[in-house]
Amino acid sequence: MASIIPLKPAQNVTVRPDALAELTALVADDLAAVNQIIVQRMESQVPLIPQLAGHIIAAGGKRLRPVLSLAATRLCGYTGERHRKLAAAIEFIHTATLLHDDVVDASDLRRGRLSANALFGNQPSILVGDFLFSRAFQLMVEDGSIDVLRILSAASAVISEGEVLQLTTKNDSAMSEQTYLEIIRAKTAELFAAACRIGAVVAARPAAEEEALRTFGLNLGIAFQIIDDVLDYSADQTRLGKTIGDDFREGKITLPVILAIHRGSEAERAFFKRTLGDQTQREGDLAHALDIMRRHDALQGSVERARHYGAIARDALGLFPENAYKTALLDTIEFTIERGF
Amino acid sequence: MASIIPLKPAQNVTVRPDALAELTALVADDLAAVNQIIVQRMESQVPLIPQLAGHIIAAGGKRLRPVLSLAATRLCGYTGERHRKLAAAIEFIHTATLLHDDVVDASDLRRGRLSANALFGNQPSILVGDFLFSRAFQLMVEDGSIDVLRILSAASAVISEGEVLQLTTKNDSAMSEQTYLEIIRAKTAELFAAACRIGAVVAARPAAEEEALRTFGLNLGIAFQIIDDVLDYSADQTRLGKTIGDDFREGKITLPVILAIHRGSEAERAFFKRTLGDQTQREGDLAHALDIMRRHDALQGSVERARHYGAIARDALGLFPENAYKTALLDTIEFTIERGF
Repeated sequence: MASIIPLKPAQNVTVRPDALAELTALVADDLAAVNQIIVQRMESQVPLIPQLAGHIIAAGGKRLRPVLSLAATRLCGYTGERHRKLAAAIEFIHTATLLHDDVVDASDLRRGRLSANALFGNQPSILVGDFLFSRAFQLMVEDGSIDVLRILSAASAVISEGEVLQLTTKNDSAMSEQTYLEIIRAKTAELFAAACRIGAVVAARPAAEEEALRTFGLNLGIAFQIIDDVLDYSADQTRLGKTIGDDFREGKITLPVILAIHRGSEAERAFFKRTLGDQTQREGDLAHALDIMRRHDALQGSVERARHYGAIARDALGLFPENAYKTALLDTIEFTIERGF
Repeated sequence: MASIIPLKPAQNVTVRPDALAELTALVADDLAAVNQIIVQRMESQVPLIPQLAGHIIAAGGKRLRPVLSLAATRLCGYTGERHRKLAAAIEFIHTATLLHDDVVDASDLRRGRLSANALFGNQPSILVGDFLFSRAFQLMVEDGSIDVLRILSAASAVISEGEVLQLTTKNDSAMSEQTYLEIIRAKTAELFAAACRIGAVVAARPAAEEEALRTFGLNLGIAFQIIDDVLDYSADQTRLGKTIGDDFREGKITLPVILAIHRGSEAERAFFKRTLGDQTQREGDLAHALDIMRRHDALQGSVERARHYGAIARDALGLFPENAYKTALLDTIEFTIERGF
């Protein structure tokens, strides 16, 4: 087992260790309603559909996207219930992409349990993903806002483009930081952006606030994915339930690797070319990769990049009045970035 | 090679041998515009997307669903251009399901060419399917009709349900005719129904015409799929480019098999249980299956069932005034049913 690289905590930032739990508690009633909609709307006369969908959806996860969407809507002063159905639609879109991702990546595990494809097979995972995706659009249609439909159909198309781009650049150890950014923006951050942005749409707030929430969500999403990629090399396993080195074994080119390659020597570049580009790995390679990353501050550098996007997200909320939602959303930025340490 | 079972043509019906070509010619300008929209909207900065989508879309096929949608709209007296974008959306939904189907069925061929999954791999086929599906919704959103969005998002969800139902009943030689009908209605006929129905929605026609077009499309779709399943046992290969017995080799339970099983002896039932249920096939089994079908008029009986749905489709158009579109749509019903013979 490779040793963990300790990372310096951010300076001048007090991270509330349970910021996401606090945000979730603020929208607890909304979220309970969302969970009810999710369970109701994954129903079908074909029993395999709720079985498979239930497996991945009940596994839980943090419901991060719905929580962000609910909180963004409340931040805009909305007092109705429309945002609940839309938050469920967002979780369905997210779940559909997870189901298809796990098939594409041939992943056996998801959130520490067997993945749906491992348990039920690839075929139903593909088809139930399609079903959930259609259900998401049905929920949006019931809400009836063509603006929301525009935002989420565009986000869905971009997610697929991001996934294809990721596939076509897989194991490309010459990948630039720019391409990496384009991939994570498309496959992760655009749905965060859409989830937050529709809060302003539902609350019928001015364009400036819609744009501010889009900026918040997009940059939070980028920071979130960078940190996710960092945690693959540094997570405290027992605490986060993650296995170190999954990305390395799959030859996934993420920001820590890109920084190590760009800051490294010819020999170090050749090492990543062999292990990730050519996928020829030997005993001890992961430990050596961690050594190179340590030498060049690749993880620390990645976290610093994430902090930049976090700062943009923070400033975007400047337009909004001070209240509990704003405080919790701001704390969530810090939590997202500093959560591993 | 098994011999072809000759089928009796319908009585009192003159089948125009090129009815579909005539229908297509009637909407030629619209269809040219649809094809242009399709090419434009499968574009992406990620080159693999138009490459893969272009492979399956350019392969052509009959564009049956867009043609039906265009003709149904013109039948309603509509003179604008909105229906073109929607017809492209319908073809995108159809193409997305074909891409995912071919992955699920591990099919190597589609319309006589290598399938997208055979040529590009399963992973991009799944993701480009998702992309086309999202693009379809973007096209609908641009059109802006929430009614159209409702109809097509519901149809999409039902298609996925039909696909999952088909998967869970695969190789079930005890499948009832009712379950077979439910599967083909969901996976094929609902999109035909939606394609036709939105013609009345776009033309802002009364509910009775919308319902009539839905009835027409649904029943035409059921007849179409039954005949497709019959052709798998009887097609004139050189004329239709089909290979006889694909469904048999895959153990697919279709109406000809269901009728043969229900009308057959215990020994004949045991034969289908072995060959399709247990997937234990030997040399000569296909020829024997054709013998059993011939003995029990299973193909002829299937065609008679299809004619029933064709009759419902025909009567549904009774509400509409006589004109070239109506004539061509009626001829298309007969063509769809009698096309193999």
